[in-house]
Amino acid sequence: MKVMAAQINPTIGDLEGNVQKILGALKRSRKAEVDVVVFSELAICGYPPEDLLLDHEFIERIGTKLNEIARETEGLFVVIGTPSWNQSGKEKPLFNSAAVLCDGRLLGYHHKQLLPTYDVFDEKRYFEPGDSPSVFEHLGKRIAVTICEDFWQHSQMVGYSSYVCDPVKQLQEYEIDLVLNLSASPYSYRRKDTRLSVFALAARALQAPLVLCNQVGANDQLVFSGRSLHLNEKGELIHQAKSFEEDDLIVDLDVRAGSHCPEEDGIGDMYRALVVGMRDYFHKQGFKKALLGLSGGIDSALVATLAQEALGKENVLAIAMPSRFSAESSLSDARILSQHLGIELKEIGIETLFQASLELLEPEFKGRAWDSTEQNLQSRIRGQILMAFSNKFGALLLNTSNKSEMAMGYSTLYGDMCGGFAVLSDVSKTYVYELSRYVNREHEIIPNAILTRAPSAELKEDQTDQDTLPPYEVLDPVIEDYIEERLSAEEIAEKHNLPLPFVEDLIAKMHAAEYKRRQAPISIRVTQKAFSRGRNVPIVQKWKS
Amino acid sequence: MKVMAAQINPTIGDLEGNVQKILGALKRSRKAEVDVVVFSELAICGYPPEDLLLDHEFIERIGTKLNEIARETEGLFVVIGTPSWNQSGKEKPLFNSAAVLCDGRLLGYHHKQLLPTYDVFDEKRYFEPGDSPSVFEHLGKRIAVTICEDFWQHSQMVGYSSYVCDPVKQLQEYEIDLVLNLSASPYSYRRKDTRLSVFALAARALQAPLVLCNQVGANDQLVFSGRSLHLNEKGELIHQAKSFEEDDLIVDLDVRAGSHCPEEDGIGDMYRALVVGMRDYFHKQGFKKALLGLSGGIDSALVATLAQEALGKENVLAIAMPSRFSAESSLSDARILSQHLGIELKEIGIETLFQASLELLEPEFKGRAWDSTEQNLQSRIRGQILMAFSNKFGALLLNTSNKSEMAMGYSTLYGDMCGGFAVLSDVSKTYVYELSRYVNREHEIIPNAILTRAPSAELKEDQTDQDTLPPYEVLDPVIEDYIEERLSAEEIAEKHNLPLPFVEDLIAKMHAAEYKRRQAPISIRVTQKAFSRGRNVPIVQKWKS
Repeated sequence: MKVMAAQINPTIGDLEGNVQKILGALKRSRKAEVDVVVFSELAICGYPPEDLLLDHEFIERIGTKLNEIARETEGLFVVIGTPSWNQSGKEKPLFNSAAVLCDGRLLGYHHKQLLPTYDVFDEKRYFEPGDSPSVFEHLGKRIAVTICEDFWQHSQMVGYSSYVCDPVKQLQEYEIDLVLNLSASPYSYRRKDTRLSVFALAARALQAPLVLCNQVGANDQLVFSGRSLHLNEKGELIHQAKSFEEDDLIVDLDVRAGSHCPEEDGIGDMYRALVVGMRDYFHKQGFKKALLGLSGGIDSALVATLAQEALGKENVLAIAMPSRFSAESSLSDARILSQHLGIELKEIGIETLFQASLELLEPEFKGRAWDSTEQNLQSRIRGQILMAFSNKFGALLLNTSNKSEMAMGYSTLYGDMCGGFAVLSDVSKTYVYELSRYVNREHEIIPNAILTRAPSAELKEDQTDQDTLPPYEVLDPVIEDYIEERLSAEEIAEKHNLPLPFVEDLIAKMHAAEYKRRQAPISIRVTQKAFSRGRNVPIVQKWKS
Repeated sequence: MKVMAAQINPTIGDLEGNVQKILGALKRSRKAEVDVVVFSELAICGYPPEDLLLDHEFIERIGTKLNEIARETEGLFVVIGTPSWNQSGKEKPLFNSAAVLCDGRLLGYHHKQLLPTYDVFDEKRYFEPGDSPSVFEHLGKRIAVTICEDFWQHSQMVGYSSYVCDPVKQLQEYEIDLVLNLSASPYSYRRKDTRLSVFALAARALQAPLVLCNQVGANDQLVFSGRSLHLNEKGELIHQAKSFEEDDLIVDLDVRAGSHCPEEDGIGDMYRALVVGMRDYFHKQGFKKALLGLSGGIDSALVATLAQEALGKENVLAIAMPSRFSAESSLSDARILSQHLGIELKEIGIETLFQASLELLEPEFKGRAWDSTEQNLQSRIRGQILMAFSNKFGALLLNTSNKSEMAMGYSTLYGDMCGGFAVLSDVSKTYVYELSRYVNREHEIIPNAILTRAPSAELKEDQTDQDTLPPYEVLDPVIEDYIEERLSAEEIAEKHNLPLPFVEDLIAKMHAAEYKRRQAPISIRVTQKAFSRGRNVPIVQKWKS
């Protein structure tokens, strides 16, 4: 039996476009003489469709598309993710389903039994859980159909819930010959091992080979890495589809094969996730061109590099906007970088506008000392210039703030926080450096001077980030442990041998910056917990203040 | 038996402050010789605590506070909302509970059975539903303890779910003498009738008097109107606590009373919700002073009026920032309004900065026509000036965009969309006018000229909103029917006798503006569906485009 995992990159709600991809995969599967084709979770509408699921017409139209697909399944056994109506009329009106199509007919559905409702997932907002596992027969084989989270309870590796039901255990009562899983599992850095253990446990428990089809590409903040996979009945990884691009993973179950899967690459994966996240955000919306402010600092240098890779050098415009506080070297480094990348660089000084602003405000601010107001003013003038270019030339402004800054509120609303898309908001400064070294792994693209210079916002004389923030090697682990690992202040203080009041103060600052983050551009999630959807905390609160 | 609904205004996570309010209420209840005291849902931590519930220490600390409260219940039967641990270790780790305290002891809990997970509610993210109703005995009476949504299935008035379980029906098997309900029911315009019908049905079904304690005050975007109530066993409304302020509703069940409840006031309620929403956002965070741009248009006029009422005239600074496109009358109306309100008005022309910006960009923009770029530039210069004042004087900038503009993206990011708090983002232009007439109901506060002049952004010569947008009396019902009523384009076109392509185009524009709204300041929700938390739609999608 030959099985194909059709790893496609759907766009949310692009039913016509997604169905074209699906029909294309079916055509290719026929050429390859495949028997069984499996698609990803909610493949027809793309994952996650969010509140579009509340639109009755949306569900009906997907149903029509499912029928179109069914007609093209002559000689095939096809499993595809789709919402379906919960006919009982009780609780939520939908199931998150896998439709099983064969020879032009709908054989039935599997309804996802475990519905993740934590972090970025809110499936119980829309779906009712299915109440039983699903086994179909085809060509004399018993095929278990499962959806993503259905596997996770068995491993007990779910962070926020512990489900009563364990579909893997339920399936042990059948003699399963093949397990299919339809997934839409978002990428996050270092998640790989968990993912593989979960699937290996399921394959071993059912003593059956397992083929999993994962979504690939990005939708809004979520990036899906693809890497659809085939495990044998011992849970050994045998084949794996490409990462971060569409692919057909074709597996012949009758051929014994040893593993031939490329090793995954930690920081390289994060780099690719950022590139794909940006590219899909642009291209799925029909944007071609990006612009960004190039300060000579490392954040904007990395964003320029990522943009050149994601969109092509001819589609990236960089603007350097020096002020009286900019080091000469910042500008020259920006020039070198843009030459390396082959992108256009414009230079527009902000001094005249800064001076004019100071003069306008002078009668009102008379007698008051310079403070963050004047620093923010410079940052906002830059934002203004960038947005004027964005508006005039229809290029989308890239935001270059990193996660460490976003955590601490070390950023200017309507200044460096401007942008249609935030590339690094989920990448701490530590990883900004690591990614930059990765960029330079073969030859210097980002000038080394940028990597070695002390980070500075250059908004006043001789400023460095560390005038205001702890060193990043101290700060970043605290952020990671509080936001991602959900450790308490006490645990963090002990783990890193830091004074408790110091850690508590950092945590209070993280919460105090929530109002700023609420106005930040949409960003790419690359860690287990980003400062965006998936982390719902109140602005007004006195728990951590 | 005397029952008191202690209608308090908790701050999220302010355990110490909230407990002080709770203990104060217990003291007052003793003076009034009350037997039973009921507080609102999750009163100890405030509703909605969101992801603070994922913090183990948060739950533990609330438990400690519950014990403190228990010690102060000598001679009382007290029911109070609190999260509690789900000891089974299965599914979600918490219950949304009502703790029943009596004579210094914890008698037990009722666990909320129906967990709303739609719109702004995401209770299944945190809580496991309780599996049975709860009846306690006190002074010979059987008292049913219920929490908010527990009542709603019985009325079948829940919009997004239909629960399998109906706690009211389950309670019919007991002979109930008194029903208590702990609520945190957010205000929305015109929701009153539904609310009362739901509770009346429950009281009648159980043939028992019902006392409901609702939260009051605002937390982030949600405003709670209070209006705790007492219905008799026929479902007739007998007493009602004050709206939009703290109150003790004390009911003697042994005294037959006719209804003495003030009529509710539609638009006046919306006005008060906005005032309370703003006041609590400021005061709960320790902000005193607000500033805003006063254009001479109706939106900023209304916001200034609301701010003066919420914060006091001495705490509101208005800044008029005329340009070459501003009508003389706009400035003079702004002056008159600020005199009426007794607030300070500064006048700062933007012409020099606008000119300087145009000159700076001229070499780059040469040969290109004026377009929205130059309009946005003016708006952003104003934003810049306002933010400089905000930073220098520590006053929070009020955003004045209305819901119609937010729906259509008729606003400038980092320009008129600046602000720490958006007052009118959930108020359509139609209601902006209605609220302004309400303000002027006794005498003219907002100059009539502002109400009668055609709305204009004044960003180019002779501009009016209707150059770009349909008339608001056409637009606003479309927005309301699509966003709040969830009607389809076809239904809306038919209902309002509009061409279908015109309606479809408006809907596509609403979706296209999602990226802007994602960067909007937090706002006050006053309708059944606001453009903020509670409406989760993708930015990148091709369903409506």
